[in-house]
Amino acid sequence: MIDLYTWTTPNGRKVSIMLEEAGLPYEVHPVNIGKDEQFAPSFLKVSPNNRIPAIVDRDADAGPVSVFESGAILVYLAEKTGKFLAPKGEQRAKTFEWLMWQMGGVGPMLGQANHFINTAPEKIPYAIDRYIGEGARLIKVLDKRLGEAAYMGGDYSIADMATYPWISVAFDLIAQAKPDVVGEGANVRRWLDAVGARPAVQRGMDVPKV
Amino acid sequence: MIDLYTWTTPNGRKVSIMLEEAGLPYEVHPVNIGKDEQFAPSFLKVSPNNRIPAIVDRDADAGPVSVFESGAILVYLAEKTGKFLAPKGEQRAKTFEWLMWQMGGVGPMLGQANHFINTAPEKIPYAIDRYIGEGARLIKVLDKRLGEAAYMGGDYSIADMATYPWISVAFDLIAQAKPDVVGEGANVRRWLDAVGARPAVQRGMDVPKV
Repeated sequence: MIDLYTWTTPNGRKVSIMLEEAGLPYEVHPVNIGKDEQFAPSFLKVSPNNRIPAIVDRDADAGPVSVFESGAILVYLAEKTGKFLAPKGEQRAKTFEWLMWQMGGVGPMLGQANHFINTAPEKIPYAIDRYIGEGARLIKVLDKRLGEAAYMGGDYSIADMATYPWISVAFDLIAQAKPDVVGEGANVRRWLDAVGARPAVQRGMDVPKV
Repeated sequence: MIDLYTWTTPNGRKVSIMLEEAGLPYEVHPVNIGKDEQFAPSFLKVSPNNRIPAIVDRDADAGPVSVFESGAILVYLAEKTGKFLAPKGEQRAKTFEWLMWQMGGVGPMLGQANHFINTAPEKIPYAIDRYIGEGARLIKVLDKRLGEAAYMGGDYSIADMATYPWISVAFDLIAQAKPDVVGEGANVRRWLDAVGARPAVQRGMDVPKV
């Protein structure tokens, strides 16, 4: 059994999607970040950065293993199950490229956009435009990639699972704000439809139920 | 032979450090981002996100493989050589945790701090304070981790190589700006000294020569 500490955010959903896709049994522990539950000492032991998601794999070979950071959890579960990450070669390298591109670009930049649009105590036009603009640039890069391959890493993989929860919530806003950069985004739209139609993705996007 | 496309930035130095540590022969191709050379079509083929670093491994088993994103390159080179990333188990999971923590936190947040301090056309106190504050919080998390283990993943690994180039340039500024958050940072200071004393790290931090 795997304990999943998560909340209703894109980073949390990456992992519930992967658990559903891999068919691994898991128990959900909601961590309500609206109530600062991520600062509880018991959670800090599992996630020293005070962020969801985190897991504890109670069935690891040498005793329970805890893992934090969504990208690290995806790699851990892919290697545990042998699914959604090629064991070697160019396909593996491409999956890591796009997974890291999500971790270092899509997540942080859209996270900053969300902060300056919804959370910051003052509206700062320069910052809002900067992060929506960076989101648009990243969507354009993704659209080009998805014009060359059906999925980000070639085959459907943890790179798509990492990126879908972010782009599915941000695409319309960014495409409307920056039509000159995003354009039609036809390849991204096709990919959003294909990934979003997967039953495991639909179940994963509904975790945690609150 | 490995072609390394890089510039004098923390993300570029991660990879030159790893190439030096692993003893892999490589040829440096400077990409001067001050002159927008990252937008050259020839570079875009290797790095579709228009960012350094990128590599082309001419000696891969099934023909040349290109890899972009610093984190993906580190994983690729670690798996190619069997060095600085445990092949399995908890040590591997810990290394990925802290590598992803760097990719999703330290790099993007310090990158934003640099933007608002040095590049943005207007000085926005809220944004500058936000990113220096986030940098301070991350350094505090790192200090706690380095109080439990000699290196980020336990043994010296690609997680340290990913984080050192960022923290070594930002630590003093952030510790002075946010002494209430960072504190003494004694564990980070010890780690900066230990990593910085490695000859391969010193050679890697000097790439590219310009």
